[in-house]
Amino acid sequence: MFSGMQGDDDIPGIGQYEDFHTIDWQRDIARDRMRHRYIVKKRQDSIWDLIKGAHDAWSGWVCVLLVGVATGIVAGVIDIGASWMTDLKFGICPAAFWFNREQCCWSDTNTTFDSGNCSQWLTWPQVFGDRGDGAGAYIISYLFYILWALIFAALSASLVRMFAPYACGSGIPEIKTILSGFIIRGYLGKWTLIIKVVGLILSVSSGLSLGKEGPMVHIASCLGNILSYLFPKYGRNEAKKREILSAAAAAGVSVAFGAPIGGVLFSLEEVSYYFPLKTLWRSFFCALIAAFILRSINPFGNEHSVLFFVEYNKPWIFFELIPFVGLGIIGGCIATIFIKANIYWCRYRKYSKLGQYPVTEVLVVTLITAILAYPNPYTRMNTSELIYLLFNQCGISNSDPLCDYNRNFTDANSAIEKAAAGAGVYRAIWLLVLALVFKLVVTIFTFGIKVPCGLFIPSLALGAIAGRIVGIGVEQMAYTYPKIWLFSGECSTGDDCITPGLYAMVGAAAVLGGVTRMTVSLVVIMFELTGGVRYIVPLMAAAMASKWVGDALGRQGIYDAHIALNGYPFLDSKDEFQHTSLAADVMQPKRNETLSVITQDSMTVDDVETLLKETEHNGYPVVVSKESQYLVGFVLRRDLNLAIANARRTIEGITGQSVVIFAGNVAPPPGPPPYLQLSRILDMAPITVTDQTPMETVVDMFRKLGLRQTLVTHNGRLLGVITKKDVLRHVKHMDNEDPSSVMFN
Amino acid sequence: MFSGMQGDDDIPGIGQYEDFHTIDWQRDIARDRMRHRYIVKKRQDSIWDLIKGAHDAWSGWVCVLLVGVATGIVAGVIDIGASWMTDLKFGICPAAFWFNREQCCWSDTNTTFDSGNCSQWLTWPQVFGDRGDGAGAYIISYLFYILWALIFAALSASLVRMFAPYACGSGIPEIKTILSGFIIRGYLGKWTLIIKVVGLILSVSSGLSLGKEGPMVHIASCLGNILSYLFPKYGRNEAKKREILSAAAAAGVSVAFGAPIGGVLFSLEEVSYYFPLKTLWRSFFCALIAAFILRSINPFGNEHSVLFFVEYNKPWIFFELIPFVGLGIIGGCIATIFIKANIYWCRYRKYSKLGQYPVTEVLVVTLITAILAYPNPYTRMNTSELIYLLFNQCGISNSDPLCDYNRNFTDANSAIEKAAAGAGVYRAIWLLVLALVFKLVVTIFTFGIKVPCGLFIPSLALGAIAGRIVGIGVEQMAYTYPKIWLFSGECSTGDDCITPGLYAMVGAAAVLGGVTRMTVSLVVIMFELTGGVRYIVPLMAAAMASKWVGDALGRQGIYDAHIALNGYPFLDSKDEFQHTSLAADVMQPKRNETLSVITQDSMTVDDVETLLKETEHNGYPVVVSKESQYLVGFVLRRDLNLAIANARRTIEGITGQSVVIFAGNVAPPPGPPPYLQLSRILDMAPITVTDQTPMETVVDMFRKLGLRQTLVTHNGRLLGVITKKDVLRHVKHMDNEDPSSVMFN
Repeated sequence: MFSGMQGDDDIPGIGQYEDFHTIDWQRDIARDRMRHRYIVKKRQDSIWDLIKGAHDAWSGWVCVLLVGVATGIVAGVIDIGASWMTDLKFGICPAAFWFNREQCCWSDTNTTFDSGNCSQWLTWPQVFGDRGDGAGAYIISYLFYILWALIFAALSASLVRMFAPYACGSGIPEIKTILSGFIIRGYLGKWTLIIKVVGLILSVSSGLSLGKEGPMVHIASCLGNILSYLFPKYGRNEAKKREILSAAAAAGVSVAFGAPIGGVLFSLEEVSYYFPLKTLWRSFFCALIAAFILRSINPFGNEHSVLFFVEYNKPWIFFELIPFVGLGIIGGCIATIFIKANIYWCRYRKYSKLGQYPVTEVLVVTLITAILAYPNPYTRMNTSELIYLLFNQCGISNSDPLCDYNRNFTDANSAIEKAAAGAGVYRAIWLLVLALVFKLVVTIFTFGIKVPCGLFIPSLALGAIAGRIVGIGVEQMAYTYPKIWLFSGECSTGDDCITPGLYAMVGAAAVLGGVTRMTVSLVVIMFELTGGVRYIVPLMAAAMASKWVGDALGRQGIYDAHIALNGYPFLDSKDEFQHTSLAADVMQPKRNETLSVITQDSMTVDDVETLLKETEHNGYPVVVSKESQYLVGFVLRRDLNLAIANARRTIEGITGQSVVIFAGNVAPPPGPPPYLQLSRILDMAPITVTDQTPMETVVDMFRKLGLRQTLVTHNGRLLGVITKKDVLRHVKHMDNEDPSSVMFN
Repeated sequence: MFSGMQGDDDIPGIGQYEDFHTIDWQRDIARDRMRHRYIVKKRQDSIWDLIKGAHDAWSGWVCVLLVGVATGIVAGVIDIGASWMTDLKFGICPAAFWFNREQCCWSDTNTTFDSGNCSQWLTWPQVFGDRGDGAGAYIISYLFYILWALIFAALSASLVRMFAPYACGSGIPEIKTILSGFIIRGYLGKWTLIIKVVGLILSVSSGLSLGKEGPMVHIASCLGNILSYLFPKYGRNEAKKREILSAAAAAGVSVAFGAPIGGVLFSLEEVSYYFPLKTLWRSFFCALIAAFILRSINPFGNEHSVLFFVEYNKPWIFFELIPFVGLGIIGGCIATIFIKANIYWCRYRKYSKLGQYPVTEVLVVTLITAILAYPNPYTRMNTSELIYLLFNQCGISNSDPLCDYNRNFTDANSAIEKAAAGAGVYRAIWLLVLALVFKLVVTIFTFGIKVPCGLFIPSLALGAIAGRIVGIGVEQMAYTYPKIWLFSGECSTGDDCITPGLYAMVGAAAVLGGVTRMTVSLVVIMFELTGGVRYIVPLMAAAMASKWVGDALGRQGIYDAHIALNGYPFLDSKDEFQHTSLAADVMQPKRNETLSVITQDSMTVDDVETLLKETEHNGYPVVVSKESQYLVGFVLRRDLNLAIANARRTIEGITGQSVVIFAGNVAPPPGPPPYLQLSRILDMAPITVTDQTPMETVVDMFRKLGLRQTLVTHNGRLLGVITKKDVLRHVKHMDNEDPSSVMFN
């Protein structure tokens, strides 16, 4: 098998793939093993070879180190840039225009930061001399808000359209597809990286309902791809490169949420396809380095690397599991509405004229978002800040209307007493309901427009709003009816026993879980956000309820739905293959067609070239002879083309009448023209199955062994070929979907 | 393929395995799929079938829920029992003899617990009226200590010897082997469970240098195995059962360390072989439930479910990475010494007369341990308490000599100042050095004796001692030379900048990492112990250094070494197959031997029975005919025996001359005696490879597809068979080890 691999150096281009092709993991891994053995053998020859050997052994670690460092730095740049530009919508720091509001106010020692403003920081009305609080100032602020939003969005959309169309969206569906072994040239390239970073800062700042967490995974993967080219072991081997990409995806989540363990589990559970356990350790290292670098850059000016780090000081009570599961169900429903509506809209965009005006669409969505968002303080603020506000518990220092309870804080250290909600809370609830509806509708139209946009943050925000409302409801019930049995245990003392902030967090986990169908990684990410094992059970209960509700209402998570919508050739490793077909039902050719084969020692160069011209298969089985179709091996179209061209160039006397010989042990035909020996490009160990093999076994082999095709035999005789494309089409066909929607070459 | 599966209900025993056999994952999973399809189809028939279908869908979750609850309860029982019996060596609570010292002193409100004693609790000298502190009391205590230790150890060893020999040791090597698809009947049975629980309490209490954490994994797996029989879906399908066992292993680690996420990663990384991602979520649930139940039982009377929960209030400083990596190197060396010496001693035990006197050996080890341990306070105390003491930072309430610094605590809230070590610290260091040497030597002889014993705790203790000593050294250097550049940054103020307790923790991780070669799961477990992301980087640095040193000095971790020593047929999924052999080199038969095959339609029952008698293979390829050996399918010896016996019993007229027919489409031979149609037990889709397939691909297929055997063909013609045994023997052979040491049927 793979005896042709030795020819890698002779025939240029062999072992590479074309765009939109699927990779052959077995072949690539075999190539890497061969390379490794060669290095190990040469290591004894000289000091220089020893150093090269050591470099080779270390290169995986060095590469993920570089990826981690680069991801941390880029994440810091994005955080700082987005924070500055978001504040630019509201005002400017004349003393140092490159400061955001928080930094500007740090340099001013005279004010408390609580009000959000300080004398150093000028809002736009103040810049223009209107220092009042009247309608004029409001209108100026409103207009500047909309103006900046449109400028940022227009810039972002134009950059994406002009320089890197792949930079739009969250990128996670495509990363999943790429990691499953598909080639999309340029998707992880340097232009995509640069435009995605700049566009992400712009689109986040524009106030659109989107997050930077999903695109961080894409950005980290770009960094992984680019840096892997420094190490030929990874850069020139697509299967090995995916080990680096898996680690990079982990680093991306790690910096997005400050959750290195969650990042690794996300990469393992959600993104990666072929995750050898030895890369787990390396991914963890990469994720940790990235988080460490980001924390050193300290973009938020505190010791946490995420904006919404929270700590609660009260345990949850057992009966609260009921509202938590309820939140899970609500979250699952919200998520399902979102997915169905978003997919419907994206499909409409794809097949209508709308798709031809991406920049216009972005501008319209931005304009509507900005106009509607500004009046409501909860939608006007940065979504991350909103989530942080909702996650927080009310304390002495919290002045938001959400914390307007009828209680007196006399001592900062005393326990928070139970209290009736004040007018501010009720007003806040109405505003939050409006914000929930607004965000849900706007996010449906936003996810999919042609700017970099993720949906972790919008999902978290939706869930946090729903959770906070439910939490306040339960809290007020406990205050009003402290005697009923549910509350009588822990809530009978004067202390507040319900933390609405925890409900917000549980709700956030529920919606995010419903949208993405993440499970373990979601719980671990949320756990790392709060830094306490204590709340894992509530989070898990809500995530489970949400996932089950989501699975019952609609089969796919948002990423899988987008993969299907775009027709990416993704063979899900989590879905069970449900049908009872046999290999014979799926293989090509169907009845009445003939299989294109090459014989091992009786076809001429002309015959082979005619076959290559007349058919479009990516590879051809080699058999003993036309009459006795016993399988000898498999040869790839690409290799065949290259080898024949190479032979014509380098071997004298090769003509169209030269016999092509694949077997090593066949007597060469005598006399001119000289025969063409191609056994080096013949894969003598193709994977075969019998025609009676059930398709679930075949699918299992495709997934686990990373096959590109398998040959079907009956009693040793070759019957046909099953390619990954055939499998994907068959799955689509059995699921009553259009098989031709699979994008594949 | 697996068409024979439909015969499951007809022919009793088909689909089961014999002891010390390896399972066929593909076959078992196919059986489960078939069963699942049947249930889904029947679900529409009646309400009762619908309920049965729902029960089937839920049974996995219910099963892991039960396993989690049972594991939590059993862990609570073990913790409470071991704590009581450990204290029994020192004294008794006359008011309520079932109280341990801590509980006894709780009931006594007059004393502080700091001194460790109170008026309610009587030490043995006090029981016998000697209330002094003199030599007499010391000797009485000493003798009682030794006496109880011997009683406990003798009981434990006798119970294991008499009732459940499989209950000895940590069980992790065997669990790894079982999860990789091997059958060891009784290893996870109810007797093993009961004796392991009782024996574990006794052996932990006896003061031997062993821990209860490893055996907890075995105990949890026993619970998983026993409870899986409540659900035929899992109990009657060995492949599916292993999903429950993986979850149970996670629950075992979860309760041992109070680390549910660490438990799941341990199960994923270290123990499990075939870990479909959908079981990740279920394992996590199981681990979490177990931790939750244990915390509700609250065996330690605090809010944490582990004895050595610690929190540090100081960050680490960047330069400290140097001593941390140093600790990693020291840890790797200690671990290597331990592994090599332990394996040497275990091999000696195995092949010498020593192995015949297990109870005597236990008693001798216990006696020596007790005599040497008592005089040194650090070895006299419970090892978990020692670890807790070493992990802790010195504060105002800590009265141990380890905290005898020349500093005055005036205010409990003030920062701890830098201070010179007092005489107590220096004395403690000497005692710790002695304890380190003693524990290392004694653990080498302890791990492997015939009582339940784990080595997480001894490893952690070794590392914690080494780490604390290094930590105190660094701390004193920082105190003595505050001006040198390393310390000048963070250590220039009066506050103490070095936490020796953190060094102890890092050292513990290093030794445990070196011994077990755990990586991610180790770091996550230690992280969950401390509850802070802050110390992940030091832990990771030490764990990496330790693993690399360990890998450089000796290839295997302790579990893999014990697997090899015992000859378990474990095909490591992490090791790369390094050699260049081809399938043709490994397959049976070798040159000059003939392959035992069955023809599809020309052998009589007598022929088949002769073949079964004369050969001992577990299965036979079925070919077209003797002359044209093209592969038709594969039939298992066991199925063949059962099917023929069944046919003779149920079908009239079957004689020795009846022709056995395997193919479905062959014309039956005319006339009496009637032919025997066995196509139902024929696997028509055996996995095949060509003779040119490199062995790394074959090994990959064995691992990933869970094969039991594969057939080797050349140009469609059958050449031979490769079984898992052949692969294991070949690996051993290539590694220059004795191939016949593989225990296998």
